[in-house]
Amino acid sequence: MNHESRLASLDVTLPDAPKPAGNYVPWVKSGNLLYLAGTICMVDGNMLYQGKVGEAQDLEGGYAAARVCAMNSAAIIREAVGSLDYVRRIVLVQGFVNAVPGFTKSPQVINGASDFFAEVFGDAGKHARTAVAVSGLPLDSTVEIQVIVEVDA
Amino acid sequence: MNHESRLASLDVTLPDAPKPAGNYVPWVKSGNLLYLAGTICMVDGNMLYQGKVGEAQDLEGGYAAARVCAMNSAAIIREAVGSLDYVRRIVLVQGFVNAVPGFTKSPQVINGASDFFAEVFGDAGKHARTAVAVSGLPLDSTVEIQVIVEVDA
Amino acid sequence: MNHESRLASLDVTLPDAPKPAGNYVPWVKSGNLLYLAGTICMVDGNMLYQGKVGEAQDLEGGYAAARVCAMNSAAIIREAVGSLDYVRRIVLVQGFVNAVPGFTKSPQVINGASDFFAEVFGDAGKHARTAVAVSGLPLDSTVEIQVIVEVDA
Repeated sequence: MNHESRLASLDVTLPDAPKPAGNYVPWVKSGNLLYLAGTICMVDGNMLYQGKVGEAQDLEGGYAAARVCAMNSAAIIREAVGSLDYVRRIVLVQGFVNAVPGFTKSPQVINGASDFFAEVFGDAGKHARTAVAVSGLPLDSTVEIQVIVEVDA
Repeated sequence: MNHESRLASLDVTLPDAPKPAGNYVPWVKSGNLLYLAGTICMVDGNMLYQGKVGEAQDLEGGYAAARVCAMNSAAIIREAVGSLDYVRRIVLVQGFVNAVPGFTKSPQVINGASDFFAEVFGDAGKHARTAVAVSGLPLDSTVEIQVIVEVDA
Repeated sequence: MNHESRLASLDVTLPDAPKPAGNYVPWVKSGNLLYLAGTICMVDGNMLYQGKVGEAQDLEGGYAAARVCAMNSAAIIREAVGSLDYVRRIVLVQGFVNAVPGFTKSPQVINGASDFFAEVFGDAGKHARTAVAVSGLPLDSTVEIQVIVEVDA
């Protein structure tokens, strides 16, 4: 797997892996599945995308917010197993969009995460997914995603 | 396993497996677990149940909407592994109901999916489950479910 | 593992495992993963914490509600495998908070569940987690959590 070199060729630098916002850990490995904690739009202590899509954020802001979540998730993967090259498959992405009531475009927002995983992991980045709009997220983050990853033992 | 014949005896024809609504895939198999993408109430390009329970939909509409989601999920299972007969167990169903604020009857809605799995898969259809009300779903679908299935390798 | 004795030393008595509120089962075991059904704040037929955080409940009520959910989840684990001592790891906790729109403090609420798992299971209780605010939960429960657990085969 050459995920690290693909990431480098994209000229993307991952942020530091986010610190948990409560009494939990960033990841748990069970068998060869890595369960990541939900990631939000916080990078280096700054919340990059805050507020609801349809209010403080438009679709483009939501998409960009989801991409930040995916970068945070990738940072946790690297911290957990040492290198993105050990990723066999992004298995499942659960996407939660902080949005105005009746919001119908969660898929377009969560594509910001999915596109990032596709760019970095190629075929191994093709994942199953949910996308729902919720009424609130931690620290008013615009997006939260939760990811399950299959890694080399 | 005789799930296909049980389905036939119910006189139910599954729809075509739904196409992804974003940059993801309908299923990922890891070990003998099949992770399905979230399914909504879209069949053959038509959204069968749209709008919130408690507004555009009543409980019966919500129940029927959840049944459609389950049929879509079953269609993905068949596409993924070739036959419903390879299903060992429906493991987990996460049910999201597009509902008015304060909606308390998500379990009755998601029973529409659970009852379908019980009818088709018998004991293998008995699953763990969550049911929550959310403020919005893709394309204003009334229900979305996400399913994890154990299949024969 | 000495989780049962740790629980006893905390002077905590688990409630009876909750009965399903619909056509599902409290748990499914696949390999050595136990998938629990979502648990709410119902104990012995009484809903202990009802209504939204930010309205009927304050943060302390939400935290206490999440603790009740965790106790219900632990009761299911014991019912499923016979003893908490078979828990190798609490893998993932998905926390849903019934909250007013725009609620940003789901992590503080779901800590009520996480702290309980940490107290009872020690290092084995350290889990990955999500925490989101939703617009409604079954029977107006203040919190619902869904838990995946790794157990000794």
